Amino acid sequence: MFSLAFGVATKNSHGDWLEVYYPRPLINPDQAFVSMISSVLGYSQGNRVIEVNDEMTVKLSEIAEMEYLAVLRESVKPIVATLLEKDSSPKTVPEAYLKLHLLSHRLVHPNEVNLEGLFGVLPNVAWTDIGAIDPEELDLVQLNARINGRIVEVSSVDKFPKMTNYVVPSGVRIAHSARVRLGAYLGEGTTVMHEGFVNFNAGAMGPNMVEGRISQGVTIGSGTDIGGSASTAGTLSGGGNTLITIGQECLISANAGTGIPLGDRCTIEAGLYITPGTLVQVMDERKKNIAVVKARDLAGHSDMLFLRNSQTGVVECRSNKKAIELNKMLHTNK
Amino acid sequence: MFSLAFGVATKNSHGDWLEVYYPRPLINPDQAFVSMISSVLGYSQGNRVIEVNDEMTVKLSEIAEMEYLAVLRESVKPIVATLLEKDSSPKTVPEAYLKLHLLSHRLVHPNEVNLEGLFGVLPNVAWTDIGAIDPEELDLVQLNARINGRIVEVSSVDKFPKMTNYVVPSGVRIAHSARVRLGAYLGEGTTVMHEGFVNFNAGAMGPNMVEGRISQGVTIGSGTDIGGSASTAGTLSGGGNTLITIGQECLISANAGTGIPLGDRCTIEAGLYITPGTLVQVMDERKKNIAVVKARDLAGHSDMLFLRNSQTGVVECRSNKKAIELNKMLHTNK
Amino acid sequence: MFSLAFGVATKNSHGDWLEVYYPRPLINPDQAFVSMISSVLGYSQGNRVIEVNDEMTVKLSEIAEMEYLAVLRESVKPIVATLLEKDSSPKTVPEAYLKLHLLSHRLVHPNEVNLEGLFGVLPNVAWTDIGAIDPEELDLVQLNARINGRIVEVSSVDKFPKMTNYVVPSGVRIAHSARVRLGAYLGEGTTVMHEGFVNFNAGAMGPNMVEGRISQGVTIGSGTDIGGSASTAGTLSGGGNTLITIGQECLISANAGTGIPLGDRCTIEAGLYITPGTLVQVMDERKKNIAVVKARDLAGHSDMLFLRNSQTGVVECRSNKKAIELNKMLHTNK
Repeated sequence: MFSLAFGVATKNSHGDWLEVYYPRPLINPDQAFVSMISSVLGYSQGNRVIEVNDEMTVKLSEIAEMEYLAVLRESVKPIVATLLEKDSSPKTVPEAYLKLHLLSHRLVHPNEVNLEGLFGVLPNVAWTDIGAIDPEELDLVQLNARINGRIVEVSSVDKFPKMTNYVVPSGVRIAHSARVRLGAYLGEGTTVMHEGFVNFNAGAMGPNMVEGRISQGVTIGSGTDIGGSASTAGTLSGGGNTLITIGQECLISANAGTGIPLGDRCTIEAGLYITPGTLVQVMDERKKNIAVVKARDLAGHSDMLFLRNSQTGVVECRSNKKAIELNKMLHTNK
Repeated sequence: MFSLAFGVATKNSHGDWLEVYYPRPLINPDQAFVSMISSVLGYSQGNRVIEVNDEMTVKLSEIAEMEYLAVLRESVKPIVATLLEKDSSPKTVPEAYLKLHLLSHRLVHPNEVNLEGLFGVLPNVAWTDIGAIDPEELDLVQLNARINGRIVEVSSVDKFPKMTNYVVPSGVRIAHSARVRLGAYLGEGTTVMHEGFVNFNAGAMGPNMVEGRISQGVTIGSGTDIGGSASTAGTLSGGGNTLITIGQECLISANAGTGIPLGDRCTIEAGLYITPGTLVQVMDERKKNIAVVKARDLAGHSDMLFLRNSQTGVVECRSNKKAIELNKMLHTNK
Repeated sequence: MFSLAFGVATKNSHGDWLEVYYPRPLINPDQAFVSMISSVLGYSQGNRVIEVNDEMTVKLSEIAEMEYLAVLRESVKPIVATLLEKDSSPKTVPEAYLKLHLLSHRLVHPNEVNLEGLFGVLPNVAWTDIGAIDPEELDLVQLNARINGRIVEVSSVDKFPKMTNYVVPSGVRIAHSARVRLGAYLGEGTTVMHEGFVNFNAGAMGPNMVEGRISQGVTIGSGTDIGGSASTAGTLSGGGNTLITIGQECLISANAGTGIPLGDRCTIEAGLYITPGTLVQVMDERKKNIAVVKARDLAGHSDMLFLRNSQTGVVECRSNKKAIELNKMLHTNK
């Protein structure tokens, strides 16, 4: 079995799922445990979402390995068991939420789990201080709160909730949680500052300092810093089809950006945006000009320093490699 | 009559208005309906703000067209009726809030309603999870909450509240609602991402992807995307006096910005900021240089691609028009 | 005595301090008052943190000068008295929080108070709508809230809370409070817009319009505006060791940035980032080229306009000074 979890769910007034909170999602659970659970739930095979009734929660709470199930027994909200035999594309809200949980619980890395059709499956939700509300049902809830002297605080109207209301992984700081979606992967030792942003299925391997935007699909390696307002072009937001990976010990400086993947120990100077089509003057370790290439031809290489010469306006890629190595590298790439 | 609405209001301890929530504002309401309402409220003419007493709410709740008035009857908070015979400059808090509601309810477009003197009329408010509080009265409220083991969450201290606590228009996503002020206009199909921002009296006609900042007075046409951290210079924030309108199917890329209005199908490359005074090299459809002009002379034209040549540092405006057309266009403009 | 304050504190389940809220911190308190307090608390000398018991609060509440102490008497939360004889490096959470309060209450300016070792002293905290929670204890709190149909809203997981939940200084607007940390200094008349950010031990002397980021240690003088997404390189975030101060009446335009200190009346054009190593063409009042220098050699000077020539790509510093004055200034600096 690929994954298994019990969650506390919210439905709208029509009985449609809005969201599911899984406190302890499991990846590749122990087969003996699965068998035990299966007999209680009446599960046999396939990807299934099972609403857990009172009788089931009583039986489940007796299973020693999952003490928190005893707590679920007392839930006033619907309890759901989601069993994914295979990692196929999510078909229901509980399945989709389980996959987002797997990412944020660091049980899978970004781009490792099948999220095909995710946007179609996820409903748009008004995220409020009294929980998830169907946007079409919000109006009356707000009116009733207001006449009673309260207010419904609507933090977000989105298909994705903020991660920290579901899981806070160990060893991280997230200065402003509204900027990290459920489904983000934050490795140990990562700090996301107020201007940082991490989308779902994206993340920082840790440790990292994130003060800029990590778009959907993008990952950054350990020791890499993303400066304030720095941008990593995502495939969802006009960045083309190339998935952007940034290696270790890189620095994308403040207000800079990259539209190409980078290897290790690369730097982009503050304020410079490298798009795949940017013509770049490549220079060797003696600052001798080697070639002018499109930035996409440099994709994935290491030890590159990108800057715009402030005396000529030329975008340069300075390397600590020798001319002969650079020439070889550029030809290999093409 | 220009507009009419019933609202739930908050006052400070001195009885001054802090804010008004209007669940169903009306534009150009039916005259028969206005007459019916007027007799209950004792309204005759002009722009009036009337505090609705219990007797009035009982009578109003019997008027079939407005079933939500029955709900208002049970309010523990002050109920206000705001009747605007004409769209003159707002003189009171309830009037100002009604106009902001009209914008966010899509009953008027940005720059269509008289907001003269708005800043002077609106009080500064501490927006908290227990409602609107006068900043001068916050101190004691916070202290009392703290000693009782609670906390007053102060989300904002500002003249404008977040839109979503008042209205969530249909068909939108707002990933982080603190970035959209009441008075923003978000057309159907618009997504405002975490880094997006929409000021009051500004907006997206829809559908749009907004990941950058739409300043006061600025509007963007359908199909136009504003990339992450992209900037549209507003008249309130040092952008000069020209109101910026961006047409349809434009792309202001990530970390870019514009200080000039744009027509349709324009693109500004990532990281490039066009100010009105930027000298721009205009090129025809064969990339032949036509003229060097200030960006303000290109204001409002369509089919322009702005980029900074990464080999020369020259800011270029590439067009798909022929030289002869471009020459004509430039001369017409001057 | 350097400083003295009574606060309402939060501890985790192990009895470790998480945070302290000081409603009325004092700087250089009156010696007679200190003596009166000392006898109640049993304080003699040094920097001390004293947990105030019921007997003490009763006695303290009788001291006329501090009427709010009567309120503290009824606290269900721990009350703490923090007395700092000297401004030495903070050793405990209550000491650290007192210093952050002094800054935000405008009792000291940024860089005036000893914050050595602050990060080591401050614990990481989950800031929620039900107060400060130890991140390691959050899990169960969230689960229990969920099964009871509530949700714990986790706004931030950080060593610093948002300022506005502790103090809202007079005469400011903070459009989005998550972007101003406790320990920020906001002078009278300052507006921090949604994209603005102010770190601890940093600030705006007021009046200022802050739409960009004021990093740790950075201060801006009166009348200076920081445009949307503009960056001031901090010493904590890769900006080097030079503390950045920006004088009066400056404009760091939208999407621009500075890695050098600036005097008065300086402007950086939109989208241009000046790093210490940027080679800059200095021009006199007649736009005649005087010299090419590194930006760090211009640090702290006044009346400079920085822009990137859009016809040549050269970063220029235009001055209204004469050639002879500029030459002198550049030589003095070296």
